[in-house]
Amino acid sequence: MGKYIMAEENFRTISGEDKIFGINKLAQEMIQKVGKEKVANATVGTLLDDEGNLVVLSSVADALKQLSPNDFAEYAPIAGIPSYLEAVKKAVFMDYEPGCHLEAVATPGGTGAIRNAIQNYTRRGDIVLTSDWYWGPYNTITQELERRLNTYSLFDQEGKYNVDALKEKLEQVLAFQGRALIVLNTPSHNPTGYSLTSDDWDQLLSVLKQFAADSSKKIVLLVDVAYLDFAGDAKEVRAFLPKLENLPHNLLPLIAFSMSKSYTMYGMRCGALLCMSLDKAIVDEFKLVNSFSNRGTWSNGTRSAMVVLSRIFADPLLFEKVVKEREAALSMLLSRGRIFTEAIEKSGLTMCPYHSGFFAIVLCENPEAVAFEAMKEGVFTVPMGNGIRVSIASISEEKCREVPEKLALAAGRITR
Amino acid sequence: MGKYIMAEENFRTISGEDKIFGINKLAQEMIQKVGKEKVANATVGTLLDDEGNLVVLSSVADALKQLSPNDFAEYAPIAGIPSYLEAVKKAVFMDYEPGCHLEAVATPGGTGAIRNAIQNYTRRGDIVLTSDWYWGPYNTITQELERRLNTYSLFDQEGKYNVDALKEKLEQVLAFQGRALIVLNTPSHNPTGYSLTSDDWDQLLSVLKQFAADSSKKIVLLVDVAYLDFAGDAKEVRAFLPKLENLPHNLLPLIAFSMSKSYTMYGMRCGALLCMSLDKAIVDEFKLVNSFSNRGTWSNGTRSAMVVLSRIFADPLLFEKVVKEREAALSMLLSRGRIFTEAIEKSGLTMCPYHSGFFAIVLCENPEAVAFEAMKEGVFTVPMGNGIRVSIASISEEKCREVPEKLALAAGRITR
Repeated sequence: MGKYIMAEENFRTISGEDKIFGINKLAQEMIQKVGKEKVANATVGTLLDDEGNLVVLSSVADALKQLSPNDFAEYAPIAGIPSYLEAVKKAVFMDYEPGCHLEAVATPGGTGAIRNAIQNYTRRGDIVLTSDWYWGPYNTITQELERRLNTYSLFDQEGKYNVDALKEKLEQVLAFQGRALIVLNTPSHNPTGYSLTSDDWDQLLSVLKQFAADSSKKIVLLVDVAYLDFAGDAKEVRAFLPKLENLPHNLLPLIAFSMSKSYTMYGMRCGALLCMSLDKAIVDEFKLVNSFSNRGTWSNGTRSAMVVLSRIFADPLLFEKVVKEREAALSMLLSRGRIFTEAIEKSGLTMCPYHSGFFAIVLCENPEAVAFEAMKEGVFTVPMGNGIRVSIASISEEKCREVPEKLALAAGRITR
Repeated sequence: MGKYIMAEENFRTISGEDKIFGINKLAQEMIQKVGKEKVANATVGTLLDDEGNLVVLSSVADALKQLSPNDFAEYAPIAGIPSYLEAVKKAVFMDYEPGCHLEAVATPGGTGAIRNAIQNYTRRGDIVLTSDWYWGPYNTITQELERRLNTYSLFDQEGKYNVDALKEKLEQVLAFQGRALIVLNTPSHNPTGYSLTSDDWDQLLSVLKQFAADSSKKIVLLVDVAYLDFAGDAKEVRAFLPKLENLPHNLLPLIAFSMSKSYTMYGMRCGALLCMSLDKAIVDEFKLVNSFSNRGTWSNGTRSAMVVLSRIFADPLLFEKVVKEREAALSMLLSRGRIFTEAIEKSGLTMCPYHSGFFAIVLCENPEAVAFEAMKEGVFTVPMGNGIRVSIASISEEKCREVPEKLALAAGRITR
């Protein structure tokens, strides 16, 4: 009979345990006991204000409120409302018009976009590549599709983007299966907060082009831009996009877009997968296969969220309000990041190279024990690899200042 | 290189052509030319009033409007909000408490529920069984998951549910793969409008139990109840549910629930998959594997829709309003069905056994040609198998009275 009675395992390792959920629950319990001032719940994956409340862009919420009943009730087309897909392109590229064909298909959040990319550009049993620090669901998605996740070391000895490690793994994967899909989460990589620099991008693309010189190989670069609008200056963080517009036909960039963070609409499940190519036939087949995947997985997407994004990009006043509100939230987050980085330096701890974003990784030995020890001080984090993940997005500036010292004390007690 | 340049076919037959969309477009064009009075657009899969506007339950739309920004913005838990899952059980079972364990997991609409059921209770390459008249996306979902759809004849020579045909196919499938998943869309089957009678259910379950007597076999019966609240008397259409509560452990009923039709929230993408078993371990593994599938496919569901259903079942006054509004819509639909059935009889045409629901199938030879010919008379339908599908849900009583004669004329011109 195996592990399951009626269900099929289907090559997945299914664990019921949700580590983050468990730690978050412990944090809530401590808050009940000692008050929220004494607890830093740095486990949460959403942006909270200094009082611990979810940051919601009121301009976006107001736009939702103004929709008609039909905007909520009606089905959207399978591939998404056309005006939404145009809005998505603007949300990603802003005023820049890429010198290539560009198509988009709506998906439920970034997760749906990543799922569709892996489903349509790899085969059952294939290896999917990402860095050793990665967002856990990449592994879940890969397994659900009966693919396998394989990783390369994100940083080299100098703490720089490790393009050589990618090159080595990619060579193996291409030799083995003739095609490769690489998931790259930038800017503000989850969980490290690293953003590829312009140099990193040039090196990366140079390597990918070398492999693509063999026209029998197919390489897909899936860029997960979930944190695009919480990474820094809007134009600077998008500076890599033009580098993707004139790649060889067998080196295909896909972009996973999500409204969750950028428009604080986590619970509306609205995102998109985008495709850039000089070859129209490639973007046409992208539209075709991803529409099929939509139809055969979740059907269509959340219409009301699509209408809201369409309106934001059709109404300059509304757009300005959204941008202004978001800039204030971004400024809060960037400030937390600076303070946290300084406090880490003072504490004697080290962290993975951090630029911006929701999370940072503090490196330590025996991270499970350190995280557990830190709970006693009211610091709740998530142990991961050889470090602990701190959600800067969910704790105040004051706590960003205090947490590193408490983590250092906890780490000291553990290694002693 | 094959058919695709960069994408992978992955055992799917992907056609860009969307027949229904195309015919609907022709109907819209004719409406522009000659006015909507002269056109019966019977292609649409949503319930429209006699003026051709989407029926939206205003009580549900108002409840959505009253939500807080956070109800829209926040993530829902992966498996769904607990109060939503309780509400789903009540939405399906009403006051009846089944004498078995019952679990539910939120999904994007009924499509997501069907997808999760097939993913978790069959294996890659398996045959999935349904009737020869079936909702097209069953085939899309099955292919997307690299399974194959196989059909049995829904009706016997007397126009009754063909349990013998199911038995024969099931025997083959079980001999071949040792497990079987059967998709059954009732009440108000799409596209025929047939609802299994109490006798049909007894015969069906008797056959399934015979096969389940071999404890090495696994049988999953997935009941798609998308039209549960548009089929007739609320209690009568649910009379089959208690029959599912004491089945052998290796004969597992799953239920695909959707808010799309019952709460006219098509575009909010909210549904659930439910599982009934006397064995707690089986419902526990159901929860586990389906939560994993959620995490690895679309992550979580639309929170605001879940909150609305929770409120409807927590607020007796709101519940009563929803039921009353829905009864009016149902009564309109049932009346259209009666009139259409009478008009079919007068026209000399025959249709598949129809009880209630959004669609009916008019049987004819050369359905593509008949449907095309009928367009000239302003009647837009969808040719399917050896018949044409008429959406009663989308045309007025008056048109339900007129359409059969026009179809008979078109059929006469074609066969002449």
